[in-house]
Amino acid sequence: MHQETKEFATPGRCIQEITADVASVVRESGIRSGLCQLFIHHTSASLIICENADPAVREDLEHFSQRLVPDGDPLFTHREEGADDMAAHVRTVLTQSSLAIPVADGRLALGTWQGLFLWEHRYRAQQRRITITVLGE
Amino acid sequence: MHQETKEFATPGRCIQEITADVASVVRESGIRSGLCQLFIHHTSASLIICENADPAVREDLEHFSQRLVPDGDPLFTHREEGADDMAAHVRTVLTQSSLAIPVADGRLALGTWQGLFLWEHRYRAQQRRITITVLGE
Amino acid sequence: MHQETKEFATPGRCIQEITADVASVVRESGIRSGLCQLFIHHTSASLIICENADPAVREDLEHFSQRLVPDGDPLFTHREEGADDMAAHVRTVLTQSSLAIPVADGRLALGTWQGLFLWEHRYRAQQRRITITVLGE
Repeated sequence: MHQETKEFATPGRCIQEITADVASVVRESGIRSGLCQLFIHHTSASLIICENADPAVREDLEHFSQRLVPDGDPLFTHREEGADDMAAHVRTVLTQSSLAIPVADGRLALGTWQGLFLWEHRYRAQQRRITITVLGE
Repeated sequence: MHQETKEFATPGRCIQEITADVASVVRESGIRSGLCQLFIHHTSASLIICENADPAVREDLEHFSQRLVPDGDPLFTHREEGADDMAAHVRTVLTQSSLAIPVADGRLALGTWQGLFLWEHRYRAQQRRITITVLGE
Repeated sequence: MHQETKEFATPGRCIQEITADVASVVRESGIRSGLCQLFIHHTSASLIICENADPAVREDLEHFSQRLVPDGDPLFTHREEGADDMAAHVRTVLTQSSLAIPVADGRLALGTWQGLFLWEHRYRAQQRRITITVLGE
């Protein structure tokens, strides 16, 4: 078992690739076969696995989310921190705070087109903490 | 490894905090470092990680879900058990049946504003079973 | 720890049950108590846990998803592979690529009405790879 927490700076709302950071934790863990679990310690940023070749996929996802969960929706009463506040909580609940990927031959066993992404839902730059736990043998 | 199943009574549709129940299973497991995995054995109630400070966040989430997945939507043909039946299945699929949280220093390593919640999607009171598995050392 | 990757042929867009395939991997692993983790290595097909008794539930889910994420939505710019291309990525992000189910008494501890499903989001037939990792004792 290997566990570590990494900090990621985000520039505000965006879908930021973290695959290389996670892959390096797996390599350094020395674990050859098992699972790599990711957990984000926030309620207004989330984790997704997504196509990593065409940046238009992430732009389309962001536009889709803005239409699905409108910032400043009059339905929302929790709005102390601005129009993105409650929308960020809803987007987080509709995606993931916790994800696991198999480890095989000492590497993250992602599919050819899969990348790991931190989705920042707040408008402003943030510091985000993700804990990576590698279990196996 | 420690595994136990707990029963939760819900009063019907609501978002009910279960953080303290899960934290006490982790403490009693004696595991200092690893993962705590939650699994709910139902298809009309689900698990979420959400902001736990302002109750308005859960109310807004519930209202958002009612608009996104209308009860008794004429689109639905599965409706034997009432207007909340199929809506409950869709809400479950759009959130989580399975979640994992890191364990560090013998405790659930949640972020400052994160809580664990059982989301009851049916109108009527139910008994719900959640299995908690703690893996680590 | 036991890990294996299985191939599933899908006939194109559909929600296909895989419970029996996963249950047999758990049985053959010899692990009595722990977790079974599933991971799908694709960004246009996903995993869900859903009611497995009435096929109308899966049809309603499919119809709901078509309304929520319209194929060929003019919002989408990533459309090289057709109207189902970007819709498939969005549906994948809104459901699961990674799921874990407890193992108890040497069996998958699903609820009475729960089944495991591979959701194919592309129109055309595909080969899909799922890695099953069983951890425990």
